[in-house]
Amino acid sequence: MSATLPAGLAVSVRVPASTANLGPGFDCLGMALGIYDEIEVRTTDDGLTIRVEGEGANDVPWGPTHLVVRAIEAGLAAAGLRAGGLDVVCRNVIPHSRGLGSSASAVVGGLAAGAGLAAKFDPALEIDRDELVHLASEFEGHPDNAAASVLGGAVVSWTETAEDGTVRYRAVRLAPAAALRVVVLVPSERSSTAHTRGLLPAQVPHGDAAFNVSRAALAVVALTERPDLLMQATQDKLHQTQRAPALPLTTAWIARLRAAGIAATVSGAGPTILALTTSEFPAELHELAKAEGLEVIEPVIADGVSID
Amino acid sequence: MSATLPAGLAVSVRVPASTANLGPGFDCLGMALGIYDEIEVRTTDDGLTIRVEGEGANDVPWGPTHLVVRAIEAGLAAAGLRAGGLDVVCRNVIPHSRGLGSSASAVVGGLAAGAGLAAKFDPALEIDRDELVHLASEFEGHPDNAAASVLGGAVVSWTETAEDGTVRYRAVRLAPAAALRVVVLVPSERSSTAHTRGLLPAQVPHGDAAFNVSRAALAVVALTERPDLLMQATQDKLHQTQRAPALPLTTAWIARLRAAGIAATVSGAGPTILALTTSEFPAELHELAKAEGLEVIEPVIADGVSID
Repeated sequence: MSATLPAGLAVSVRVPASTANLGPGFDCLGMALGIYDEIEVRTTDDGLTIRVEGEGANDVPWGPTHLVVRAIEAGLAAAGLRAGGLDVVCRNVIPHSRGLGSSASAVVGGLAAGAGLAAKFDPALEIDRDELVHLASEFEGHPDNAAASVLGGAVVSWTETAEDGTVRYRAVRLAPAAALRVVVLVPSERSSTAHTRGLLPAQVPHGDAAFNVSRAALAVVALTERPDLLMQATQDKLHQTQRAPALPLTTAWIARLRAAGIAATVSGAGPTILALTTSEFPAELHELAKAEGLEVIEPVIADGVSID
Repeated sequence: MSATLPAGLAVSVRVPASTANLGPGFDCLGMALGIYDEIEVRTTDDGLTIRVEGEGANDVPWGPTHLVVRAIEAGLAAAGLRAGGLDVVCRNVIPHSRGLGSSASAVVGGLAAGAGLAAKFDPALEIDRDELVHLASEFEGHPDNAAASVLGGAVVSWTETAEDGTVRYRAVRLAPAAALRVVVLVPSERSSTAHTRGLLPAQVPHGDAAFNVSRAALAVVALTERPDLLMQATQDKLHQTQRAPALPLTTAWIARLRAAGIAATVSGAGPTILALTTSEFPAELHELAKAEGLEVIEPVIADGVSID
């Protein structure tokens, strides 16, 4: 039987966007990007009020907003708590369905809000970051976006399946190389992860698997210490080629950027393009991207979700 | 037209053994192990004399010894040189055909000897370590053993294939965590890499490829900073299960060690078992291994080939 929170407890959460499937790191390598959604939650005696500003404001109560409330409740439940009522304000900035992890951010933000309320009610009920990674990844079904939004920086995430079938999502944070700069090019069209996931083959050549294994190991080195190796470290044979037909603009831009020596990959399941560099992003490519309808953002590599 | 070295130049090389295919890192992750072959080479006016002591002494001129001479000549050729004659002494300690990279060590040692002679003849002809990695991997056909013996420590290695089909083997050295300890259990029977490589499937499930991708990325973190994660970081679905029927003793020992919480994997293509730990290797397992005919060695993680 779960305890009910008193009315009047409040928490503010700021959660970063994320990129996932980073280069060779399908379902594994992610990074937190400094584009933030904010969630404010206050406990009330009963009922639920939600106000959504910005991205997705017209989608209430479906989509990420709905997800935020479910996640808040899950965060409370993880601490053995429930709320009589909730007043929720979402200030959304992360673009939706573009490969920037907005749904993972909504889940992480909601869980973090629930965890934050629990800790305010009783510090002994605090939920640690590893548990947040697991709970948020469980919502998402894969850990790389959620882990990045929880832990910040770059992450290596993985899924452990016990002999009894129990799944545990885990991740470690990497400290990105100081010289590393991120540019994301965001197309205006949306993409469905469910659709693009269906484009992946059931089987792949052993050599392609070994190829990605070496590049994923190299990516950890490149992201943390050797950004000069990012071109090789972002090569992939497991997801980008297979999804390319569904993402022609994205694919063309990745080719264009890589031809210019900039390590570009699909962000998540696309359509956003992630570019990693250690020098200024070329002004002519910036202009060309804008001319082709892409939004160009240069986010910092963010810290993980903050809970106040 | 290559210049001919004068008689009387001498070089001594000490080259470590290596483990490859480390856990999830098929053809990618390797580590240099402090079991050393020594090669002494002296230029003469003409002819070839070879003396082999220790492992493989009865195999002359076939096998690694022959390989050493070919590699010395290749090392000289890379510097645009040849020798009128050579006097070669090999003091072999690395067990052969056990998955400890003895042929890669022979190649690295020979190339390093050739490179050392070239540098003594003319310092401007020095061959750098990256070139040694490439040349030695070309002999071997895969880079993880050779890169480990050249660079020392742990390595991430990979193969770059240019659009014209040109192959370049590359590697970066990782600094292993100070707490990391290596134990190798060496069965008395030999294994043929060519045979065990034939046991690998042409295709693998996409999910198994993604599994190894995450573990290989994690392995870089575990080997350098988080040895507490080595159990998860040495999981593999790309080569060990497939070769298990050919390596029953090895497979049984890996299962036994992992059940005891020790991160054990096949070393290279086997049959040697590599165990990574941060604590004392249990005395009862050490005794049991010896009782089952395994040689138990606790090598340091070695530096790369030394050339004097």
